[in-house]
Amino acid sequence: MFKEEVSKSTIGMKTKLPLGFKSAGIHCGIKKSRKDLALIVSDYPAAAAGVFTLNKVQAAPVILSKKHLKESDNFYAIIVNSGNANACTGERGYFDAEQMTEQTAELIGVKKEEVLVASTGVIGEPLPMEKIINGISAIKNYLADGDEKDAAEAIMTTDTFYKTESSSFIIDGKEVTISGIAKGSGMIHPNMATMLGFVTTDAAIDKDLLQEMLKNTADKTFNRIVVDGDTSTNDMVLMLSNSASGVVITKGSDSQKTFEAELFTLLKKLAIDIVKDGEGATKLVEVKVEGALTEEDAIKAAKTIALSPLVKTAIHGEDANWGRIIAAVGYSGIDFDPDKFEIFINGTQILQKNYIVTLPNAVANQTLKSDQIELVVKLNQGNESANCWTCDFSEDYVKINGSYRS
Amino acid sequence: MFKEEVSKSTIGMKTKLPLGFKSAGIHCGIKKSRKDLALIVSDYPAAAAGVFTLNKVQAAPVILSKKHLKESDNFYAIIVNSGNANACTGERGYFDAEQMTEQTAELIGVKKEEVLVASTGVIGEPLPMEKIINGISAIKNYLADGDEKDAAEAIMTTDTFYKTESSSFIIDGKEVTISGIAKGSGMIHPNMATMLGFVTTDAAIDKDLLQEMLKNTADKTFNRIVVDGDTSTNDMVLMLSNSASGVVITKGSDSQKTFEAELFTLLKKLAIDIVKDGEGATKLVEVKVEGALTEEDAIKAAKTIALSPLVKTAIHGEDANWGRIIAAVGYSGIDFDPDKFEIFINGTQILQKNYIVTLPNAVANQTLKSDQIELVVKLNQGNESANCWTCDFSEDYVKINGSYRS
Repeated sequence: MFKEEVSKSTIGMKTKLPLGFKSAGIHCGIKKSRKDLALIVSDYPAAAAGVFTLNKVQAAPVILSKKHLKESDNFYAIIVNSGNANACTGERGYFDAEQMTEQTAELIGVKKEEVLVASTGVIGEPLPMEKIINGISAIKNYLADGDEKDAAEAIMTTDTFYKTESSSFIIDGKEVTISGIAKGSGMIHPNMATMLGFVTTDAAIDKDLLQEMLKNTADKTFNRIVVDGDTSTNDMVLMLSNSASGVVITKGSDSQKTFEAELFTLLKKLAIDIVKDGEGATKLVEVKVEGALTEEDAIKAAKTIALSPLVKTAIHGEDANWGRIIAAVGYSGIDFDPDKFEIFINGTQILQKNYIVTLPNAVANQTLKSDQIELVVKLNQGNESANCWTCDFSEDYVKINGSYRS
Repeated sequence: MFKEEVSKSTIGMKTKLPLGFKSAGIHCGIKKSRKDLALIVSDYPAAAAGVFTLNKVQAAPVILSKKHLKESDNFYAIIVNSGNANACTGERGYFDAEQMTEQTAELIGVKKEEVLVASTGVIGEPLPMEKIINGISAIKNYLADGDEKDAAEAIMTTDTFYKTESSSFIIDGKEVTISGIAKGSGMIHPNMATMLGFVTTDAAIDKDLLQEMLKNTADKTFNRIVVDGDTSTNDMVLMLSNSASGVVITKGSDSQKTFEAELFTLLKKLAIDIVKDGEGATKLVEVKVEGALTEEDAIKAAKTIALSPLVKTAIHGEDANWGRIIAAVGYSGIDFDPDKFEIFINGTQILQKNYIVTLPNAVANQTLKSDQIELVVKLNQGNESANCWTCDFSEDYVKINGSYRS
């Protein structure tokens, strides 16, 4: 019931920030002309949570934000720059990241440990700190509630469009809002570029529960867009909850379920926005692997399919080339019996067990005409399943592979 | 001394088959017009060795060739078709692969277990056996010594040029020849396409030693072109040695060392030919990782760098973006201290320990002007090293990533 209310109320609406939050995005001079500095501020003390890159090489802002999350209970701001990742910059880089939190803290009158920081862009070059410090002084004048368009633009690198989503829903008779911005990349392999996400809510959620919910939902969304183990030096998703709605989310309650479901949907939308921004992408593809022995196997198989250039070019060419799907699972490293393999595309079975094909190729290819593809692989080995999202490969990449059958 | 003789004697020469071998390549109708059936025949009984895909899903010709290698000691032929992989084709596929060996065996008057078979092309479609059987009847008339151009052409799929190499050298005062043909692919990721290699020699080598030398050399050549664990359903390298030169290679002898070194050089040339045929490749890149704790770590780091689209676009754009190289090692899963990292490009150090950059960017970028790039990463953790080969990423892929710093 809540869900319906929400979906109706948000149709055609702009996104909006939760109560007590403001954001801004400006050009401070790191990039030539595009926005490159974003600030999100909470008027009230907020609990914070974060998930971070697994890369062995971690950028200074990753190290510092993790440290602040351990040191403080209350947070008031997230400061982010794009155009320079402040990664592989040694001690100076760490000092610069600290400076960013200090300047921001000073600006809004809090402690530097109560500010989180993120960066994205070129690796190995020192931050142009004069520009950033001037930017931080200036950005306060642009802080506004409403949508987060400017902040979302200011965190972009190779992204071709900004990514914002928000959702308002009723818990205990009161409205709660979650809002998020994200950036991904325009690359063929999203796994090589920095992914950032910043989520805010006006619910009251204690730190541990917030961390638990962010981890759970990010694992099934941001970490399912063919990313995960292969992460950049700077990846992070941060979340702030500032209690301004007066709605308290307690662990194990129905309201937690509602909230977590909404958070999942919001992060999923942002994750899909990142996929849609893939280079030359023309189709959004959800890969679902069912009947695996373990969830880990299902994730591994789904991601291997989603990463396969051969599968992605076939989908682009609307060629239901199931052999490429089986071959990808074959080198994914999981245990399975190829004879039990079944494949469904947008609900139509294109491969039965024992490699039996009942549809003529032309009919099977029809299943790929849509710009949204659901590719289901049933391994028939066990009961575990997982999904992930990816996009097709188009254009020049296809020139060679598209003529493969000629 | 032998080496010099060889390199001089082969400059500008056509490749040639070893004594007692003939080959042919014809169009039998699997593809529309290009050659699609190859045959290599030995006049004398030959010992055989093979290395095969690690994919969990193995094509019928892989299964059958492995079986024949176990069953027989003498081999007389390798029959190969392109245009259809005979993979994921169930019992019928296995029967068809057997038919190919049977027809070939009949043609030359040997047993079917004395014939090896390979296929490459579309997965999941039955072989057009009538065309293939007719082709096998016809191909005998085209068998010739000399070079292997026709056979090399007939095993191509998305390859843009055929790949043959041969080497003649003196052992115990007699000439020994090794010849090889290979096919790779025109894809961005060579790891997703079938790689085939067929090697012949007129030396006398027993089965076990032949297998050992083929495995050793293939591991350091074909398996070092960003491939390995991720293999197709059909990958294989087969080798025949037919004793026709009268030169016997025994285990542990100097002649084994000479022979194995020549075999390594030949397979390396074929592997590099495959890399050079990468889509839009303009630079050949050798990645060397030194000072790793284990050889496995060195291989893992080298391959991760070689697979990184960010590294490959930077090399294409002649941008000595060392941060991308460190970041790739960072998610390779190996243990290392980023502060100890050093990077050299074509002999020039572009990064010192502790992220110290002494060269201006413009000077560092000069190191990438060549069309042959040697990228050396010193981890300074231990004493193990490894290398691999890859190519740059060009054109449209670069459009987005090339403008990253703007």
